[in-house]
Amino acid sequence: MTGLTFDVLKTDNTARTGRLTTAHGVIETPAFMPVGTAATVKAMTPEAVAGTGAQCILSNTYHLMLRPGPERIERLGGLHSFMNWPGPILTDSGGYQVWSLADLRKMDENGVEFRSHLDGSVHLLSPERAIEIQHMLGSDITMVLDECTSLDADKDAVALSMQFSMRWAERCKAAYEERGGYGLFGIVQGGLHDDLRVESAEALKNIGFDGYAIGGLSVGEGQEEMFRVLDGVVGHLPQDRPRYLMGVGKPADLVGGVLRGIDMFDCVLPTRSGRTNQAFTRHGALNLRNARHKEDLDPLDPECGCPACTNYSRAYLHHLVMAKEILGAVLLTWHNLHYYQDLMAGMRRAINEGSLDSFAATFEAEQHTLTAE
Amino acid sequence: MTGLTFDVLKTDNTARTGRLTTAHGVIETPAFMPVGTAATVKAMTPEAVAGTGAQCILSNTYHLMLRPGPERIERLGGLHSFMNWPGPILTDSGGYQVWSLADLRKMDENGVEFRSHLDGSVHLLSPERAIEIQHMLGSDITMVLDECTSLDADKDAVALSMQFSMRWAERCKAAYEERGGYGLFGIVQGGLHDDLRVESAEALKNIGFDGYAIGGLSVGEGQEEMFRVLDGVVGHLPQDRPRYLMGVGKPADLVGGVLRGIDMFDCVLPTRSGRTNQAFTRHGALNLRNARHKEDLDPLDPECGCPACTNYSRAYLHHLVMAKEILGAVLLTWHNLHYYQDLMAGMRRAINEGSLDSFAATFEAEQHTLTAE
Repeated sequence: MTGLTFDVLKTDNTARTGRLTTAHGVIETPAFMPVGTAATVKAMTPEAVAGTGAQCILSNTYHLMLRPGPERIERLGGLHSFMNWPGPILTDSGGYQVWSLADLRKMDENGVEFRSHLDGSVHLLSPERAIEIQHMLGSDITMVLDECTSLDADKDAVALSMQFSMRWAERCKAAYEERGGYGLFGIVQGGLHDDLRVESAEALKNIGFDGYAIGGLSVGEGQEEMFRVLDGVVGHLPQDRPRYLMGVGKPADLVGGVLRGIDMFDCVLPTRSGRTNQAFTRHGALNLRNARHKEDLDPLDPECGCPACTNYSRAYLHHLVMAKEILGAVLLTWHNLHYYQDLMAGMRRAINEGSLDSFAATFEAEQHTLTAE
Repeated sequence: MTGLTFDVLKTDNTARTGRLTTAHGVIETPAFMPVGTAATVKAMTPEAVAGTGAQCILSNTYHLMLRPGPERIERLGGLHSFMNWPGPILTDSGGYQVWSLADLRKMDENGVEFRSHLDGSVHLLSPERAIEIQHMLGSDITMVLDECTSLDADKDAVALSMQFSMRWAERCKAAYEERGGYGLFGIVQGGLHDDLRVESAEALKNIGFDGYAIGGLSVGEGQEEMFRVLDGVVGHLPQDRPRYLMGVGKPADLVGGVLRGIDMFDCVLPTRSGRTNQAFTRHGALNLRNARHKEDLDPLDPECGCPACTNYSRAYLHHLVMAKEILGAVLLTWHNLHYYQDLMAGMRRAINEGSLDSFAATFEAEQHTLTAE
């Protein structure tokens, strides 16, 4: 039994709006989920995150299993209460971070043994443990554990890895059903190979999930290749289940993803950029360290209603980032999340009006009205 | 002509409540002013600062003269608009930071030449320039430039330095009157010597200021010595003008200062402590890194109504500081400023009820109900 229901509300070519109902509230799709890695969306209070329009956040199993530990979070009442985010939470499985952050020690059919990047302690992640951890966290949307394939692996290696991930997906489903939970998503793998992607999608449909994620993209293949893969695989995913493009992306990636039928996204880009002096706007990206902002009394984005744009000039934000003040990271993160949510809301409106193509054309044209920095 | 008026509302022995009216609003005294060094109260939005109850902030001439520069802030519309703080702003003269942060190059009767700690550039600060800079910032309360004397200087040196500062105070007054402004405070010096402190107070009264600050304390002499100096000098300051104890202090210093007739305080302690894992509470100070908070579901201070205490457990705050998350610094700073403002509001109420002694006794008893950390 699932706690998730998904209703497609309106379609516009391949794109659609929908309503994903979880145990902790509704997510209007297409949705962008801010990343709250270590039980906090970096530099933001949860109230401020909700104020940007975000309805669901993502949190990371890898980081939380190392610190403070899922058993502790469970004893403290679960992740929602711990971090004071009453809305839906999607948790990843930890796989991606094990491969990208930890020191891998041993990997076999059973699971993966790794050393923590924090203190060198040894941990095991298996499909069953990944599900158990997410259950202890109290996740609304649980992700299967899969293997991440390197972009330069040959096709045979990608195929073996994908098939390996499909066996783990089956074990995740079994572990999830034993334990109960709110909703479980499978993850399509297969690198840049259309036939492997389709094989993966079919395998997942046979197992049966509440939603279907597309993994292993935005890892250096370029936007054109990513869109090509989406074009090849989205049609093989069930129409009546949400589709989630993991770890993506830049504003233009979101627009291209929605045009291709994606319902959910997550990415560290708006938050990480906020801590590295970059602002996304309707007219392109700004680097606030640039000296041309020194005496610019304009807001970041005159069409934005976020606190950074309402109350402060680019000159002040430039000053804050030059002085490495925390408030600079806070305000830029706030703006970026607000901008991302505005972009998603704009796409949802456009889809409901049947005008997403025109929205996308305007978006594309406006993105280049700033001088490149 | 001054823009400042000060009304004593109620006295309770030496302590009193008052109302200091500035061009940008009223400050109820005794008041604690959070420090916004570089045109930001670190880790806080101005709205959040105001929400703690703070009515006036302090900003630093030294930091702002180096970056972004007073001429720039003036061109951008002044400090209030630049940093979006519509309330009163007190600016220091830059002297203390020149002596503590910069590389001193030359000092004579005219002024002090120093190298910036940021980029090594050479700057001159004189009484006239200090007043000019504060004028360009748009300060509501301007401070005279004085010399900071080392605590271990012998009495003759302290006397010479104090007399030097009095000559600068006179030049500051003249420069201020030429230029106009909202209000100018003199600063009593004289180290730990009662007779020099009295001589300094008399000299300042002869010049005539809108308020009188006591400088050169809380620099290592200990609380008992500081209180002894206050006991010796406060009676020599005008009853009808505000008295400001600069750079002080710990909660117990504020209580002792108010008992001795001080009306205004500033200190980096609540904000700096918020970034270094320390919380001040009604029951003493807590170090949030301490492992005993790992699974403590209690708030920092059950009697506090700040966002950190209302929405989060000590266990979560412990997690944030262990993970070095920005939100940890934000929430602890928020709490500390809230606690400081609650303490000042409590003292104002007690004075108005004639019960400050009893308030101070309760404060003292409760501060030790936490196990020392």
